[in-house]
Amino acid sequence: MPQFLDSRQPDFETAFAALLGAKREDSPDVDAVVADIIADVRTRGDAAVIELTERFDRITLTPQTLRFSAEEIAQALEEVPAPERAALELAAARIRAYHERQMPQDADWTDDTGARLGWRWSAVSAAGLYVPGGLASYPSSVLMNAIPAKVAGVGRLAIAVPTPDGQVNPLVLLAAQISGVDEVYRIGGAQAIAALAYGTDTIAPVDKITGPGNAFVAAAKRRVFGKVGIDMIAGPSEILVIADRDNDPDWIALDLLSQAEHDESAQSILITDDAGFGRAVADAVDKRLETLERRAIAGVSWRDFGAVITVSDLDEAAALSNRIAPEHLELCVADPEALAAKTVHAGAIFLGQYTPEAIGDYVGGPNHVLPTARSARFSSGLSVMDFLKRTTLSRMTPEALRAIGPAAAQLARSESLEAHGLSVQARLDRLNG
Amino acid sequence: MPQFLDSRQPDFETAFAALLGAKREDSPDVDAVVADIIADVRTRGDAAVIELTERFDRITLTPQTLRFSAEEIAQALEEVPAPERAALELAAARIRAYHERQMPQDADWTDDTGARLGWRWSAVSAAGLYVPGGLASYPSSVLMNAIPAKVAGVGRLAIAVPTPDGQVNPLVLLAAQISGVDEVYRIGGAQAIAALAYGTDTIAPVDKITGPGNAFVAAAKRRVFGKVGIDMIAGPSEILVIADRDNDPDWIALDLLSQAEHDESAQSILITDDAGFGRAVADAVDKRLETLERRAIAGVSWRDFGAVITVSDLDEAAALSNRIAPEHLELCVADPEALAAKTVHAGAIFLGQYTPEAIGDYVGGPNHVLPTARSARFSSGLSVMDFLKRTTLSRMTPEALRAIGPAAAQLARSESLEAHGLSVQARLDRLNG
Repeated sequence: MPQFLDSRQPDFETAFAALLGAKREDSPDVDAVVADIIADVRTRGDAAVIELTERFDRITLTPQTLRFSAEEIAQALEEVPAPERAALELAAARIRAYHERQMPQDADWTDDTGARLGWRWSAVSAAGLYVPGGLASYPSSVLMNAIPAKVAGVGRLAIAVPTPDGQVNPLVLLAAQISGVDEVYRIGGAQAIAALAYGTDTIAPVDKITGPGNAFVAAAKRRVFGKVGIDMIAGPSEILVIADRDNDPDWIALDLLSQAEHDESAQSILITDDAGFGRAVADAVDKRLETLERRAIAGVSWRDFGAVITVSDLDEAAALSNRIAPEHLELCVADPEALAAKTVHAGAIFLGQYTPEAIGDYVGGPNHVLPTARSARFSSGLSVMDFLKRTTLSRMTPEALRAIGPAAAQLARSESLEAHGLSVQARLDRLNG
Repeated sequence: MPQFLDSRQPDFETAFAALLGAKREDSPDVDAVVADIIADVRTRGDAAVIELTERFDRITLTPQTLRFSAEEIAQALEEVPAPERAALELAAARIRAYHERQMPQDADWTDDTGARLGWRWSAVSAAGLYVPGGLASYPSSVLMNAIPAKVAGVGRLAIAVPTPDGQVNPLVLLAAQISGVDEVYRIGGAQAIAALAYGTDTIAPVDKITGPGNAFVAAAKRRVFGKVGIDMIAGPSEILVIADRDNDPDWIALDLLSQAEHDESAQSILITDDAGFGRAVADAVDKRLETLERRAIAGVSWRDFGAVITVSDLDEAAALSNRIAPEHLELCVADPEALAAKTVHAGAIFLGQYTPEAIGDYVGGPNHVLPTARSARFSSGLSVMDFLKRTTLSRMTPEALRAIGPAAAQLARSESLEAHGLSVQARLDRLNG
C-alpha cells in the first residue's frame, strides 16, 4: 500500500515533509576499496586493470584484447534484429536533433570604452562514458550520453562496459556505433574509471567521465573528480504525475509503475484534485502488479515510497511539485502548459495524456539523464553543455585602459594586492606620460 | 630562481611534464572535524553556530545578531571613501553588463511528427555566497559571485562572512549592497556552510552555495554537495603569459607577479620565442621583488613554481598552452586574435599588451572565478549558468505518439522494462482501436 495523503488533513504538512525527507537509498561505504583500486591502476596500469577484470568479471584479457576490435563489433551487430536496429536509429536521430539545438553561441562585442569582450565555447577533447554491464546495460543510456558528447564536438569518445563472463549486450555496441563512439573497452568498476581518468599504456586518459554505475563506480567518479570532470552522481529515479479525473486510471498507473519497476528505491507519486480518481489509480496499480514481469521490484518501490496525494486544486499541486522538485513530472490535466508555467523545479516535464514518461526515456529527444533526489532545484539534465567549456575573452585598447584602468588600480590597492595595481599603473603611466 | 626551459633542449619533455604535474598544494585532512561540525549544526542549529563562532572567531552572537542589521550595514558604509565606492560601482556595472549577455534562451518548437519540444531555464530560488574573512576578504569576489546570481534571477541571496574579533571589511558590505545581496550573516567556516545548506531557526536553507574558502570551507562544500549545488573547489591561482620580444619586460614581470603575490602556491609561467626577452623579464621580476609589499609570498611562488620557457615559434607556444590549460592566459603578441584561436583550453584569455590580467580581476566584465589546476580542459568560469537550471519539455500529440511510440515500446522490450512499454502501448492501442 502506498501512502494516501490529503492536503486538507491536519497532519498533512508533517506527513508530506516526511515523504520529502525519506531516505530511499543506503549507499554501501566502498570508499576505501575504491581508493586502493585507483592507486593500483595508477601504479601498475594495464596489469592492474587486467587482474581486477579477471577477479570481478571472470574473464582473462591482454593489453591487446582490452578493447573491442572492429571485427568483434561487426560480428556482434549481426545478431541485432532489424526492428531493434530501426528503433535505436529513430531514437538516435531524434536525440541528435534535439541536442543540436542546444549548442550555445559564441559572443564578441565592443563596449562603449572600445574594449572588445566576449566568450568562446569549445569542446572537451576526450570523454569517457561508463556503461553498466549485466541487467542494467541499457543501450538507451549509451545514446543519451554519447550523442550530446559528439554533438558538442568531443574528438575522442571512449566507452567502458564490463562484460561479466564475457557477456555483452549487442545493442550496447550498436548504440555506440550509431552514436559515433571511437573506442569500446570491456572493463568496468572503479578500475575502468581509474583507467579513463589517469590512462594506462593501452587506454589514453580522458578529460570528462559521464554515465551511471554502481556504488563502486560512483565512489570512483567522486574520487577522480578534479583530475577529470564528471557528471552528477545519480540517485534512484522518481516520477511525479499530476492528473485530473479526466484520465484513464490504467494509463496513469502504468506511468507510475514505469518508474517503480526501475529499482526498489525508485519513487512514484500521484497528485490529483479528485480523491476518487486517486483511489482508482491505486487500484489499477494493484491490478497491473498482479502480472507485471518486474512486479517484485515495482511492488516494493510502490509499497515503500509510493504516494497518492489529494489536493484542493491544481495551484496547490504546483506548489507541492516545486517542493518535491521531481526528476520527471507528468502533467495530465486539461491545460498542461498553464500548469507547466507554475511548476518551476523539475528535470523534465511531460505535457498531456499522450506523453507518457517512457517516451522521454527513449525517443522523445530530450535527455533521460536527469537530476534526482530534489537536485532539480539547482541542476539540469545532461546536455551538450556538459561536454563544452567557455573561455572568456577581453582586449583593452589604450583608450579602454585609460577609461577603466584607474578603477582597477584603486581596487587592487583596497585589496592590498600591489602588483595587481602596478601592472595596470605601469601601462597607464606610459599612456599618460 | 624560476625554472628556465627551452623546447629545443633534449630533456625538455621530461622537464615540462614535471612542471605540469607539480603538486602545488597540500590540503590538510580536515574532513573528520568538518563532518562533526556539520552534524552539530544539523542537530542543534543556531546554538551550534553561535558556539562555534565564539570558539573560532572570538565573538559572542545571539540569534538576533547572527545577521547584520540594515543599520549596522549603513553605518559601516559611511566609512568607505568616495573613490573606492566609485571604483566598486564601475566594476559592478561592467560585470553586470557582461553577465546579462550570458542569459540563455528558452526554446520551443514543433517537429515533423507534430510533437512539441523545447526547454526552459529558471533560476535557483535561493543561493548562499561564502566570503572569507581577514586578509583574503575581497570585495571583488563578492561582486563576481553575487552579480551573476542576481542577473540569473536568484530570489534570495545570502552571504556568510566571518568577522574574527568583530572585524569586518566595509568594502565587502558595500559590494554586497551594490550587488543586491539580501542577507549578510557574520559566520564562517564549516559551520556557515552547514547553516546555509541545512538551515537553522534563523537562517533559511539555500539551494546553491558558491565562493572561495579555506580547507574547512572546501571540505564542508564537498560534504553538502548533493543536498545543495556548489561551484568548483578552486585550487591555487595560475597565469600563463605568451609574449614576443616587442613587450616591455617590466609590464610582463608585473603580470607574472600579480599571480605570484596571491599565494605561495600560485604559479606564473612565461612562454616566449625569444630567450633574451625571457631573461630580461626574469631580471625585471627580480628587480620588482626587491620592493614589492608582498615579496615574501610572491618570491616563494616565483622560486618554487615560476617558469620561463623558450620556444621556436608561437605555434609551439599554443601547443604547450593547451597542455597547461591555464586559468589565466595573456597573449602579448603582434596578432593576439590569431594566437587565441589556437589556444583552446583556458579559463580566460587577455589579448594584447594593454590587457593585464588584473583588469579581469576587477573591472573587465568577465568573471574572475575561473577553473584552476588544468581543469579548464573540462570546465568554465563562474557565470549566470551556475545559478540557472534547465527543464526539458515535451508534448506528444496522438499523431506524434503513433509515429514514434512503437519505437519506444520496442526499446522498452529490449531493455526488459515492461511497464515502460505498456505505458506507451496502452495509449497506442486506444488510438488505433
